[in-house]
Amino acid sequence: MSLLSLPHRRFLQDLFPKTDCLLTPEEMVVFEADASRLEGTPLAVVRPETEEQIIELMRWAHKERIPLYPRARATNVVGLCVPQKPGIVVSTLKMNSILEVDSDDFIARVQPGVITGDLQKRVEQEKLFYPPDPASLGISTIGGNVATCAGGMRALKYGVTREWVLGCKAVLPGGKTITCGGRNHKNVVGLDLLRLLTGSEGTLAFMTEITLKLIPKPESTASILAGFANLEEALHAIKVMFKAGMLPAALEFMGPEVLTALQDAGAVPWPSTVTASLLLRFDGSHQGLEADLEKAGAIFKACNVLWSTTGIGKEEEEPLWDVRRSINPASFKVAPDKYSDDVTVPRGKLLEAVTGIRQIANKHSLTILTFGHVGDGNIHVNIMHDASDHDELARAKRAKKEISNFILSLRGTLSGEHGVGLVKAPYVHLQLSETERSLMKQIKHIFDPHSIMNPGKAF
Amino acid sequence: MSLLSLPHRRFLQDLFPKTDCLLTPEEMVVFEADASRLEGTPLAVVRPETEEQIIELMRWAHKERIPLYPRARATNVVGLCVPQKPGIVVSTLKMNSILEVDSDDFIARVQPGVITGDLQKRVEQEKLFYPPDPASLGISTIGGNVATCAGGMRALKYGVTREWVLGCKAVLPGGKTITCGGRNHKNVVGLDLLRLLTGSEGTLAFMTEITLKLIPKPESTASILAGFANLEEALHAIKVMFKAGMLPAALEFMGPEVLTALQDAGAVPWPSTVTASLLLRFDGSHQGLEADLEKAGAIFKACNVLWSTTGIGKEEEEPLWDVRRSINPASFKVAPDKYSDDVTVPRGKLLEAVTGIRQIANKHSLTILTFGHVGDGNIHVNIMHDASDHDELARAKRAKKEISNFILSLRGTLSGEHGVGLVKAPYVHLQLSETERSLMKQIKHIFDPHSIMNPGKAF
Repeated sequence: MSLLSLPHRRFLQDLFPKTDCLLTPEEMVVFEADASRLEGTPLAVVRPETEEQIIELMRWAHKERIPLYPRARATNVVGLCVPQKPGIVVSTLKMNSILEVDSDDFIARVQPGVITGDLQKRVEQEKLFYPPDPASLGISTIGGNVATCAGGMRALKYGVTREWVLGCKAVLPGGKTITCGGRNHKNVVGLDLLRLLTGSEGTLAFMTEITLKLIPKPESTASILAGFANLEEALHAIKVMFKAGMLPAALEFMGPEVLTALQDAGAVPWPSTVTASLLLRFDGSHQGLEADLEKAGAIFKACNVLWSTTGIGKEEEEPLWDVRRSINPASFKVAPDKYSDDVTVPRGKLLEAVTGIRQIANKHSLTILTFGHVGDGNIHVNIMHDASDHDELARAKRAKKEISNFILSLRGTLSGEHGVGLVKAPYVHLQLSETERSLMKQIKHIFDPHSIMNPGKAF
Repeated sequence: MSLLSLPHRRFLQDLFPKTDCLLTPEEMVVFEADASRLEGTPLAVVRPETEEQIIELMRWAHKERIPLYPRARATNVVGLCVPQKPGIVVSTLKMNSILEVDSDDFIARVQPGVITGDLQKRVEQEKLFYPPDPASLGISTIGGNVATCAGGMRALKYGVTREWVLGCKAVLPGGKTITCGGRNHKNVVGLDLLRLLTGSEGTLAFMTEITLKLIPKPESTASILAGFANLEEALHAIKVMFKAGMLPAALEFMGPEVLTALQDAGAVPWPSTVTASLLLRFDGSHQGLEADLEKAGAIFKACNVLWSTTGIGKEEEEPLWDVRRSINPASFKVAPDKYSDDVTVPRGKLLEAVTGIRQIANKHSLTILTFGHVGDGNIHVNIMHDASDHDELARAKRAKKEISNFILSLRGTLSGEHGVGLVKAPYVHLQLSETERSLMKQIKHIFDPHSIMNPGKAF
């Protein structure tokens, strides 16, 4: 049974009628974990529908010193949604309305629980475009994306979620509300609280409404999938392409281990001499795209491409992107378990990073898959292992730690887009100084003096 | 003579040898005002060359409670650089080195006093591109641009300065240093102190080094200058263009009063039926640009354009942009003085805003020029007047205040890109709530407990 006191239970049941307040373990079980597979048992789960409910909840929790854990679709892989200490999980599932899409102001105003992919489809009906595309966009939410400053493949051309947030309404611990920014595409009045909340991992305030910037939807897209003899040659081709002034919307690489995994899982389209692959997408006008494909093709040819194929428009492009999408299923044929990481290095250090990770893999007799976003230096690292094999599990853990240290030695960052959450919190001191963390903690204290917002996470 | 005590003078003269410490009114006079024409007399002007000097200065000023006023080229139009209370002006003029341009990492690392236009020329030599282009870029600095989160014409496609800052080193009051972000294009570890400093108008810390994100330089640019019967038709044409998926890098409008001023000042290229003009620039590949011009031309034709001309590549485009550049000289033929403002409204409210500003102009028998960035809803408002005519000056002041209130009633913002500084500080409470300003003041207090950093500014 719930560990909540009777008055607390009554308060929550009054504020969240019927099924909007869950108190039994059976009801709460799905709210215990996130995609990190870490878990914690909440005292209760509530599902607000209105800002008024959140104001009341924040007033109460602040007074009673009860932790709150904001949670949307819990696709987070670093334990951000996990109620580590006893507290209330606050689900945004019922705050999932697209409040407004304004094709004159080029904005969308949404509640935090709106699924990113749903918003994208909605705005595209009006020839508008919301570029951020975290891999989880089909199931993750705008609220979660803003809380983590989610990235994605199109970040190369369009930047991350931060660049697309124009405003928000938020409730502070204690129940006061603030409005940051608004509908204006430019706004420089006061300190930038909006971007302070963005990426704060739910540790400062609860966003109840978010205004996003939109742009015209590009006429079309075009993709190239290309195979090279090795990653060095592939990255050289990219360098030449950048020098020629080309900026793809997305630019993905797949390392040798990924290609082997794909090959073992089924047919791959390229010859066996290919050990590194690039997948690019351009967007723009039809005529511009034709020119882009031609130009990129010529560059790749001059850079010893072994194999390539192209597609213009969604239908033609899908088979190319299916190859990348099959990395995840193929990886589980390598080993039943994986540690995923999303380390990021300065762009020019990508080859060095991948080479070093391979050395760590060899040292520990592990298969480590590397793929990700070339343009951001954002490498997805999958340390494959069998968790039932204690020795292998221990080696995987050691490899994970060594990779973190190695990436920092390249002046990289512990997280490019997944965030810190619970999983990386123990390592933050390796990247941020005591002074920097002290400033962050003091800022947290201003917003949340009793530390009720997602405690134990982020910094 | 300086009002500084002898020990303070000695301290400064020891830390800043020879001409790097100015103490006489004659030497300091050029450091008293900024482009706002407001002024204040500093106690001293110092010109640090090293971070070590700034650390010592910040330690001393914190201990002695002496205000510091960071100052670069002082192009700010809202009094941001003005030493309102007695204090030390800290010039970044001698910290003007481009420390590094890395075409593999796609970053530039600079000292705060580097002139933005100089950096752009430098990176373009390596086929790299730093998009932010505040109008002052030929004389303003990266440090000032970051401190104000400067915008510019290319913000429509590329966003503002905030989107291009990857990292900084900064000295806090008291002398501690922090490093925010770094060379990584994606980074989500900890609260976003970097973007908190960006746009903070020098009120939190002193940046000693800034790392900027670069992208490949687009192959070429192309421009269109077009005349319409009225602003309504011009804006309709833009709407159709956006619907067709086109996103220019820059998209400027000039209202009827501007066109009259240009006509009075000399020849304009269009027929007299034109009362509103658009100036667009696209960037991309040669073939893409040709397609863009063709497509935009067809759209404009369908939208009753009265006159237009195009240019591909800098040489052909310059005469088109000369028309816009002549607004400022032409404006002074209307009246000898102006109040400049840079109000911003949600994009769809541009016509309503310009129409309302015209009504305010008529009411006060003033000429008010409106032009600016269509895509951002960012309107440059020039309230022309003769300051020696007391009645006209009073009317201009009333008009300025009425415009601020009117813009806020359209859910606009007091400043899109100029900042708050001294000039707009009295109006900030109209836009930000008590709770929001209180959060900002508490954050300021964490960084700067004795309020030595640019006091009296911003919020």
